[in-house]
Amino acid sequence: MNRDNYRLMEDYMLSCMGDSAHDKEHIYRVLYNALEIAKTEKSVDYDILIAACLLHDIGRKEQFENPALCHARVGSEKAYHFLKDHGFAPGYAEQVKQCIRTHRYRRDDRPQSLEARILFDADKLDVAGAIGIARTLVYKGAVAEPLYSVSAEGEVLTGESDTKPSFFQEYKYKLEKLYAGFYTERAAEIAKERQQSAVDYYNALFREVSLPYQNGRNELEKRLQ
Amino acid sequence: MNRDNYRLMEDYMLSCMGDSAHDKEHIYRVLYNALEIAKTEKSVDYDILIAACLLHDIGRKEQFENPALCHARVGSEKAYHFLKDHGFAPGYAEQVKQCIRTHRYRRDDRPQSLEARILFDADKLDVAGAIGIARTLVYKGAVAEPLYSVSAEGEVLTGESDTKPSFFQEYKYKLEKLYAGFYTERAAEIAKERQQSAVDYYNALFREVSLPYQNGRNELEKRLQ
Repeated sequence: MNRDNYRLMEDYMLSCMGDSAHDKEHIYRVLYNALEIAKTEKSVDYDILIAACLLHDIGRKEQFENPALCHARVGSEKAYHFLKDHGFAPGYAEQVKQCIRTHRYRRDDRPQSLEARILFDADKLDVAGAIGIARTLVYKGAVAEPLYSVSAEGEVLTGESDTKPSFFQEYKYKLEKLYAGFYTERAAEIAKERQQSAVDYYNALFREVSLPYQNGRNELEKRLQ
Repeated sequence: MNRDNYRLMEDYMLSCMGDSAHDKEHIYRVLYNALEIAKTEKSVDYDILIAACLLHDIGRKEQFENPALCHARVGSEKAYHFLKDHGFAPGYAEQVKQCIRTHRYRRDDRPQSLEARILFDADKLDVAGAIGIARTLVYKGAVAEPLYSVSAEGEVLTGESDTKPSFFQEYKYKLEKLYAGFYTERAAEIAKERQQSAVDYYNALFREVSLPYQNGRNELEKRLQ
């Protein structure tokens, strides 16, 4: 990719970024993950891949302000118009648009091109392992959701079959399950290397918070008349 | 403690709670930690300890709205007046106030009574281990601070001797160092049990984020003309 075009797209991306779970460093991690994955794939079009990585989350602000909007859809349209307005070929803009549209998991709209699949995997890698834990906790802080829910009996819930939003609930519903379903072998391999850190962290946190509730509630009962 | 008094103070605490890093579950964890610590101490006054735990963070909202205020000072005054207004003895209200005033680390205002030291340790335990990591990340999300800073050369900084606020910076400045300086043996012991989870998590996260920057920036250079 031409260095000037890279700067142009990077500047546009920076002008669109917002909350800290999807801040600009997420974009660079996804770009770097994608380049790592691309090393093991054949015939990657780097002009498409780099543009798609840089611009994949430019629709985040719109979704944050109106949760009915899908950032992948909005972002793909914004990217298409941005590229066309800056003189890039419509066919190229269209291919970048397709990558961005399908980077978010949807059963009925899966990534088709090699570059789209690499972007999908690179983005998903940023939810695996310790970084996935960190980004989820940061997000919970931003939207003021709790770490866990407590049952009517005063026990900390694991998050499994829990319907109230919390960190543990998201861990059980999403983070724990994402290690299957990567498109590329390299991404699956990196995710696998990261998996144990996330498992260990969840287990440690659950132990640290659930024990005090179990023991403390009994102790409190003894002290109340 | 009389059960009605417990409910009275609990209701007042609940009416004061705000952001999710210092939500009501933090209060219960501190209370339960304190009761666990108290089991190994002699002559604990549970009427003072339980009240101090329940009310220790009721000044948080004031500090959040005006960072020049100290939540321990504000909370101690609020607790004193609340207790006196509800017919508790001034001497009792004063002792609870002292515990709350000194629960935050200050070189010139250290906890004096046994109950004050137990509260201090119980609160500090909630910054140790995996729960300390979780609460710090949630807080970073709430105030929109990043996970790490990146050097001018594009390397992820460890947080050590870093002056810009980030999760890594707070880990190195605060979380990593808190395992010394507990007043009670039991709290020091629990903190020690939790320490490795925090160390492992930081190391895993640093590895996961720093490697892509190292490798990815070189890969990117190869692809830019």
